[in-house]
Amino acid sequence: MSRGEVTRATILEHASGLASQVGLEGLTIGRLANDLDLSKSGLFAHFQSKETLQLQVLEHAALRFVETVSRPAIALPRGEARLRAVFEGWIDWPSSSGLKGGCFFVAAAAELDDRPGPVRDRLVELQRDWFAFLAKAVRIAIEEGQFRSDVDPEQFAQDAYGILLAYHHASRLLQEPKAAERAKRAFDNLILAARAPQA
Amino acid sequence: MSRGEVTRATILEHASGLASQVGLEGLTIGRLANDLDLSKSGLFAHFQSKETLQLQVLEHAALRFVETVSRPAIALPRGEARLRAVFEGWIDWPSSSGLKGGCFFVAAAAELDDRPGPVRDRLVELQRDWFAFLAKAVRIAIEEGQFRSDVDPEQFAQDAYGILLAYHHASRLLQEPKAAERAKRAFDNLILAARAPQA
Repeated sequence: MSRGEVTRATILEHASGLASQVGLEGLTIGRLANDLDLSKSGLFAHFQSKETLQLQVLEHAALRFVETVSRPAIALPRGEARLRAVFEGWIDWPSSSGLKGGCFFVAAAAELDDRPGPVRDRLVELQRDWFAFLAKAVRIAIEEGQFRSDVDPEQFAQDAYGILLAYHHASRLLQEPKAAERAKRAFDNLILAARAPQA
Repeated sequence: MSRGEVTRATILEHASGLASQVGLEGLTIGRLANDLDLSKSGLFAHFQSKETLQLQVLEHAALRFVETVSRPAIALPRGEARLRAVFEGWIDWPSSSGLKGGCFFVAAAAELDDRPGPVRDRLVELQRDWFAFLAKAVRIAIEEGQFRSDVDPEQFAQDAYGILLAYHHASRLLQEPKAAERAKRAFDNLILAARAPQA
């Protein structure tokens, strides 16, 4: 990487962590300049506007999610094993991401659901891709004969999403010590209910 | 109500709706003064500080939630019927609350999980009360013999919370038309899995 690319990556890394704590709206070029001891004009040269900065932070977090959660799961055998790996990676993501403020996307979703614009649009695309990825993993488990043919992949995806959101809520806000254990049991129940007889 | 109480209620009503859209941090006395055509000094007389305002907005939303969701459910027979009414009221709450920005508490939870202080502390208390209310409704269904004795009430509460959070996420951010139908099916599955044989 060139020196400019290194600087840009450093900025995006810091900005992603900050956004997961204070929200994407809380990201200001002034605050980043101060935190990273860079000039505002230098930051403007990299990002032009707050909106461009927010969009690039979103891409940075999405790429990190793919590297940390989706890609390792795809390396595993198709079907239930892969789905379980997706879930394990997903539940670990708030810590494995290295971002300080819990799940970047949960924070962004709550923040942006009432704020129309290109940043919200891109977040929606990323979240729909993730839903589609989950539903496809379920479809594969059906094709492999591990899950019953009448399992609804989109229902499964929404249910799995709920388990993760409740885990995030119970562990971070309520600091409930059994939150992870309960999330794992809920996911086991979801898998058990989907299994084909004798699979 | 005295004129002062009417003014205070009007302010809190508007502030709760605004907070569900822009967050509790986005609530400023200046913005409220402008929206409601009141003087800043008049607003300060009611609320003294931004933190007092945030706390009172939280109490206002909590009271509305009790009136709209919990109290009508308590009027119903104990056990499964009451639990179902809780769920129906809860899923309707973002619209029945009359607040514009979806679920006030989902927004507040995502915003405050990284912000220590009295407002977060009060939100945590309210959310723990709600978890305890759900778990107690499950315990009653067990006592009534409708649910199996080995059902874990706290697990059920976290699972139900997940269904609601996923519904909120899928309907508001992703504008998924089947979000409510899937949430209802997930709740039916949760109830079915909890039922005592032949209950």
